[in-house]
Amino acid sequence: MDKIFRVNMTDLTTKVEAVPAGWAGLGGRGLTSTIVAAEVPPTCHPLSAQNVLCFAPGLLTGTAAANSGRLSAGAKSPLTGGIKESNAGGTAAQMLAKLGIKALIIEGAPKDGTWYNLAVGVNGVVISEEKELLGLGNFAVIDAVEARLGKKTGVLTIGIAGELKMTAANISVKDPDSKIRSHGRGGLGAVMGSKQIKFISIDGEGAPGVKIADPEKFKAAAKVFAKALLDHPVSGEGLPTYGTNVLVNILNEAGGLPTKNFTVGQFEGHDKISGETMHDTIAARGGKVKHGCHAGCIIQCSQVYNDKDGKYITSGFEYETIWGLGADCCIDNLDDIARADSLMDDIGIDSIETAVMFGVAMEAGILPWGDSKGLLRILSEEIGKGTPLGRIMGGGAGSVGKAYGVTRVPVVKNQGIPAYDPRSVKGIGITYATSTMGADHTSGYTIATNILNVGGYVDPLKKEGQVELSRNLQIATAAVDSTGMCIFVAFPALDIPECLPALIDMINARFGIALTGDDVTNLGKHILKLERQFNIEAGFSNVHDRLPDFFKTEPVAPHNAVWDFTDAEIDEFWNF
Amino acid sequence: MDKIFRVNMTDLTTKVEAVPAGWAGLGGRGLTSTIVAAEVPPTCHPLSAQNVLCFAPGLLTGTAAANSGRLSAGAKSPLTGGIKESNAGGTAAQMLAKLGIKALIIEGAPKDGTWYNLAVGVNGVVISEEKELLGLGNFAVIDAVEARLGKKTGVLTIGIAGELKMTAANISVKDPDSKIRSHGRGGLGAVMGSKQIKFISIDGEGAPGVKIADPEKFKAAAKVFAKALLDHPVSGEGLPTYGTNVLVNILNEAGGLPTKNFTVGQFEGHDKISGETMHDTIAARGGKVKHGCHAGCIIQCSQVYNDKDGKYITSGFEYETIWGLGADCCIDNLDDIARADSLMDDIGIDSIETAVMFGVAMEAGILPWGDSKGLLRILSEEIGKGTPLGRIMGGGAGSVGKAYGVTRVPVVKNQGIPAYDPRSVKGIGITYATSTMGADHTSGYTIATNILNVGGYVDPLKKEGQVELSRNLQIATAAVDSTGMCIFVAFPALDIPECLPALIDMINARFGIALTGDDVTNLGKHILKLERQFNIEAGFSNVHDRLPDFFKTEPVAPHNAVWDFTDAEIDEFWNF
Repeated sequence: MDKIFRVNMTDLTTKVEAVPAGWAGLGGRGLTSTIVAAEVPPTCHPLSAQNVLCFAPGLLTGTAAANSGRLSAGAKSPLTGGIKESNAGGTAAQMLAKLGIKALIIEGAPKDGTWYNLAVGVNGVVISEEKELLGLGNFAVIDAVEARLGKKTGVLTIGIAGELKMTAANISVKDPDSKIRSHGRGGLGAVMGSKQIKFISIDGEGAPGVKIADPEKFKAAAKVFAKALLDHPVSGEGLPTYGTNVLVNILNEAGGLPTKNFTVGQFEGHDKISGETMHDTIAARGGKVKHGCHAGCIIQCSQVYNDKDGKYITSGFEYETIWGLGADCCIDNLDDIARADSLMDDIGIDSIETAVMFGVAMEAGILPWGDSKGLLRILSEEIGKGTPLGRIMGGGAGSVGKAYGVTRVPVVKNQGIPAYDPRSVKGIGITYATSTMGADHTSGYTIATNILNVGGYVDPLKKEGQVELSRNLQIATAAVDSTGMCIFVAFPALDIPECLPALIDMINARFGIALTGDDVTNLGKHILKLERQFNIEAGFSNVHDRLPDFFKTEPVAPHNAVWDFTDAEIDEFWNF
Repeated sequence: MDKIFRVNMTDLTTKVEAVPAGWAGLGGRGLTSTIVAAEVPPTCHPLSAQNVLCFAPGLLTGTAAANSGRLSAGAKSPLTGGIKESNAGGTAAQMLAKLGIKALIIEGAPKDGTWYNLAVGVNGVVISEEKELLGLGNFAVIDAVEARLGKKTGVLTIGIAGELKMTAANISVKDPDSKIRSHGRGGLGAVMGSKQIKFISIDGEGAPGVKIADPEKFKAAAKVFAKALLDHPVSGEGLPTYGTNVLVNILNEAGGLPTKNFTVGQFEGHDKISGETMHDTIAARGGKVKHGCHAGCIIQCSQVYNDKDGKYITSGFEYETIWGLGADCCIDNLDDIARADSLMDDIGIDSIETAVMFGVAMEAGILPWGDSKGLLRILSEEIGKGTPLGRIMGGGAGSVGKAYGVTRVPVVKNQGIPAYDPRSVKGIGITYATSTMGADHTSGYTIATNILNVGGYVDPLKKEGQVELSRNLQIATAAVDSTGMCIFVAFPALDIPECLPALIDMINARFGIALTGDDVTNLGKHILKLERQFNIEAGFSNVHDRLPDFFKTEPVAPHNAVWDFTDAEIDEFWNF
């Protein structure tokens, strides 16, 4: 029987609890959002003892289902002030699931300045004072924890950004190569920092593993599902070959690659930072073109990126990071971007928020456009050392905008707008505007249908069909985020008829239940409405479901498109 | 006939317009809030060309009515994100009124980095490029403008804080001694900075003056009104003798003097910073105990505070500033507080927001409690020079709280809570929570009735009657803020039966109309509702009419009082 592991950081107690009946059918985002809605006062300060940080593996995590190893983290976000779920790969999700941990819930906060670590094992959680690793970067923490507890230990850790409670701080997860994946968005690292937990180790010893109610049915469905992933051109070919960075040239071609803090939609240096260039560079330098962020991943969109001497720089080197530090900051030096990616992993700060932030910082004149060396210096010497400038920047794009009086700040609900211009890819603009998470491409990835012709085609430059597209994808994504599945399963799920039924069959076989497609849709709707209700109680209204004014007033080349949705049209999103 | 003077900073044009019929009966706050509500899109970026900065003298400004020389400034606030009116003394209000300027409206923003000054005269406004005075402090600007245009010129100016668009930046107004009064709260200096206007000069030459429809009636009423001001013990004796700083000992005695960032309600060093000590110090050093911020002030709550060598340090040295840098920062050196007051005037930053900010900064460990020398250094070297730390601090208490992860941040709608603890003076807590302006004691000064026994008595430690008290005072204040009257006329108006009728008689005699007391109350209600509607459209809801959590959970000595209003009880405020 799965359990809830609960930690109270105010009185330093831990409990192992039965799973409440209402939570039994939930996992991942569905569960973390349910916990946050149930246990966090919506108006509380996100860094106070009243906030709760929780982790939940998905419904299929720990099984043999392909790409099911994602971990959801949830809390009230110190970046947006609303509910937050951020999911990541790495080894933690499967270890927690196999230990029978439905969710790890961390409440309260220490009353003095003492820092702690948590050790999660089959019998519960042990809280220990932590001194030695304070102030260290994430890579050093992972090395040290492995030295203490063994190579197999799972690790969730925060860097200096989380320790300093920067609102762009992320939570890092050890991956199969002892490198880093991130619960990137929304400042959850600051919440972990506010609870004064430097790291959480996970000991998989004695884990009972995940029981499958109907193993035969599961196996059959898993096979169909895996085949669909491999058969689809995006998940089976594009992503494994070029990684997510396959998108640089595609978005540049579409005129939707935000460049120079969203002033134009194409970047002159796109070729130098593209997935194609990256692929060839990796191959030439003896890196790895394909790489998985968790065991059982068959898409392998990650990679190992080495420098010209063949020395490791980074992995999990994503399109959004490369876009943000590249096109949006007018930097065409992929090696420097890779170094920045590694620094951000070590500092423990969201690479999307930080990239968008640098675009605003360049607009503010803090550093020149294209100054990759200056950017690297600021990362290590300012943000990484928590100087006042580092604190401003560690608060993300909105923070820099406020401190420097910049009006062109691409954020929604104070979260930086990622790598797809909403004027020239209008569906994603609806997602940015309406997502309960703040601007977040993953919460309803219309790029699939607007740009990649997956799940049909909706013209990215026209308004027609965008609200419906975003709504359908946001509902589906909320459900998929509850399964532990990687979001990229959406590509075959949208195009290959057997894929989604196979996914549902796996869930049914795992739990011995009989969910229908409608049940899954209803779960997605329920999650979105639950999250929105939390946000309303936290002080959000339709007024916050809007893009910044400059998208309405500044046409973006090459299409000279503007954001032309009326408020009423955007608000139709919630008609379900 | 009064006119509207309108300036467009986008195309650098100016116009003189007839007063729209609906604005004829409005002045001061009633007019600025009407203009903002009519002309500013509630969701716009406050520093964008879409915001409007407007100035309006009150209905009685420019007449011989005692204490009627206040100027209202209005805009969407970059500090709160809501509507803002901030009024100040100085010479500008009466000059504008005598020039027949009902309101000066500044819209748009320059498209390049060029800075300007505005010259207001009887024929309209002239826009000129300004280079020479950029980067100068307010005192130097006033000196330079007087040297250019003569000693009699009126001046509205911003310091470095406004130039850098810090959200705590104020707008300074030249007073009768060429010193400074401030439109302090809400960051209006940043709005003026966003329009790239360093200063506005006012030339009173050829001003037609204010016409009185019924001079005899006016004179008679003005006499009754002035007598009431002089007869009341607060406006006629307490304020003239000790200034507003008479309140340090009173609030300390009441246990409502927030100390050490609102951790206790009494300050050990209260005697050293009290009005009584200040009075004796001023007298001994050859300063001025009484001083008016505008011609016609008969309360004279200002003063001239010299150093021990008899050299001028500051004037307009208010209780809230002295409380904030004093008790709230644990500083008992009145001379250093006076030096800080002068620095804040010169930099052009709100002394309340900045004082509350320093309390949070000390809690964050940026400087030690009580470190007045460090505070002076930070004001001149960090805030005054716009360093990154200065930018964080120039954003006020909320900004420091966010950058340093502090949870005990005394703000409502991101505006710092002033000098009266809402746990031990509960009426003012209702005002802080519900004011359309963010935390603002002046918008419904329940201290009168909770502490000073003016207008009756409502026990400050009990909940009973506080919502009604705050409501009545907020309605009355919105009306009084429309007359150009100093808020301190409220003391006699609450206690002396002839006072309020005399005020209304003056308005009637001025315009040849027949307002009743009910009309004035209805005006106050209308203004509050108009402002609230703007805020709702800007994204505020009841959820934002709340005090920070720590007031609910931390009892404050000596009464061990907590903030114990339910949300529903607070929301009753708007039932009118």
